[in-house]
Amino acid sequence: MTTAGTRTSPEQATVEDQLVDAVVASFDGAPDPRLKQVMQSLVRHLHAFIRDVRLTEAEWNTAIEFLTTAGHITDDKRQEFVLLSDVLGASMQTIAVNNQAYQGATEATVFGPFFVADAPEIPLGGDISGGAAGQPCWVEGTVTDTDGNPVPRARIEVWECDEDGFYDVQYPDERMAGRAHLHTDADGRYRFWGLTPVPYPIPDDGPVGMMLNAVGRSPLRAAHLHFMVTAEGLRTLVTHIFVDDDPQLAIGDSVFGVKDSLITPFVQQSSGTPTPDGRDLGGSSWASARFDIVLAPVDV
Amino acid sequence: MTTAGTRTSPEQATVEDQLVDAVVASFDGAPDPRLKQVMQSLVRHLHAFIRDVRLTEAEWNTAIEFLTTAGHITDDKRQEFVLLSDVLGASMQTIAVNNQAYQGATEATVFGPFFVADAPEIPLGGDISGGAAGQPCWVEGTVTDTDGNPVPRARIEVWECDEDGFYDVQYPDERMAGRAHLHTDADGRYRFWGLTPVPYPIPDDGPVGMMLNAVGRSPLRAAHLHFMVTAEGLRTLVTHIFVDDDPQLAIGDSVFGVKDSLITPFVQQSSGTPTPDGRDLGGSSWASARFDIVLAPVDV
Repeated sequence: MTTAGTRTSPEQATVEDQLVDAVVASFDGAPDPRLKQVMQSLVRHLHAFIRDVRLTEAEWNTAIEFLTTAGHITDDKRQEFVLLSDVLGASMQTIAVNNQAYQGATEATVFGPFFVADAPEIPLGGDISGGAAGQPCWVEGTVTDTDGNPVPRARIEVWECDEDGFYDVQYPDERMAGRAHLHTDADGRYRFWGLTPVPYPIPDDGPVGMMLNAVGRSPLRAAHLHFMVTAEGLRTLVTHIFVDDDPQLAIGDSVFGVKDSLITPFVQQSSGTPTPDGRDLGGSSWASARFDIVLAPVDV
Repeated sequence: MTTAGTRTSPEQATVEDQLVDAVVASFDGAPDPRLKQVMQSLVRHLHAFIRDVRLTEAEWNTAIEFLTTAGHITDDKRQEFVLLSDVLGASMQTIAVNNQAYQGATEATVFGPFFVADAPEIPLGGDISGGAAGQPCWVEGTVTDTDGNPVPRARIEVWECDEDGFYDVQYPDERMAGRAHLHTDADGRYRFWGLTPVPYPIPDDGPVGMMLNAVGRSPLRAAHLHFMVTAEGLRTLVTHIFVDDDPQLAIGDSVFGVKDSLITPFVQQSSGTPTPDGRDLGGSSWASARFDIVLAPVDV
């Protein structure tokens, strides 16, 4: 595949082939065989890209400037390289390669840049919102293995944005909100109050946002609620649930995270409808969702 | 090509294929057809790399950290992304794609990160060193087109490191040294005093240097003197000349810039040998090199 009209003579192809071979050979002495394999494959694919598109020197400069700008906007709270990987589908492909579907197990999706390790523990039925604004949403379900056995004391991390589309780490202050962890009960059941998820744009004021704009792509993610579920002897699951009536699902998710099996009914409950745990919501409407989680064996 | 022992079922391959297709399709609406082509090819090659090596999530994290560190070490005087492109041969492959060999014309090589646009003009026979330390070296030659016609008033930019392997932009102060520009005379001839080139390491105290060390590669570049030659109606040439008796040529150039046609005799002249222009070198030995430059037509 070369650009129409580009003359690539056999002699020229030989020059380009020999360069690839020389660069690949420069890694022959790497003491770590895995590092050698990864770098040599990277070189082959990178050179194939440059040759396929006949990359111009101006385009190469643009790429260097893009990476430089991405590096300079990246700090403790902003990770432009993760965004870049996300919008190119590289994050999701890495997830796919490492989380091959296992019959009956819940599917994985992207981890994203907004997880925080030390979110507070809440009891079953507790509230993860921590004051973040949004419609209250009751979420409940079970954690089982692929044989249907309940998994007691599974650790469930949940995190999500507020109704304005911001995670707590994007707030100007340091407060924690919209995240928590809890454990399943002896029967593998869990339940908590969260917020009904809303679509939000990935941070788009940097080079990744400029690129999306230049190619006519939306920065919006489909509405979702993040889960990470860990239990001894079972494969850790990183996933989301998506909201079945979210119009963004039809438009597309900017990081390609949607899987059909993860699209979940979020049932709207009008103001005054009794809550599952008798909580008084002060006249607010609310929603409810059920997500039954199935963990694969650890050695898949 | 997949890692031995990795199970990739047809179902799994379908999942991975569909993800590639979805990401490629997300660029279908790009208004600029060239940008669309480049991004879609980038996606295909990036995903092929991830799938070929079955990139682990830990390796993906390492890649994100590598790019982040590269971004943070990059500033006005240090360009880690150019270094990365250089040591992966991507710079040289881009040069190769854009500077296809033209019969009889001088070959191009990497531009490198050390060019400065506003280097001083020197007369024919002038000295580019500007006080930079090193063995004096007389360089002379001609600039012609591929029909052998001399090119008068061609602009020649030359730049090089000092005997310690440092370019002026790496000095702690702001002084300019080891670089200048000059013009050919009416017969297309040029001559100047420079320094005999020495091998030097690319800056290796950052992530690129760590990677080279991890794979057992030398950061040293073969000794060279940079040229950029521009003349109206002819293709601009960016190249180096390399020193024929440099032992680094056999070990390898860390950025893959060497072409056989650019390896040039640098003749050592003992102390007291008369100089071509009668200059008194105060008892220093010196060297001399001849580089006849042939510029291709502009529309190659």
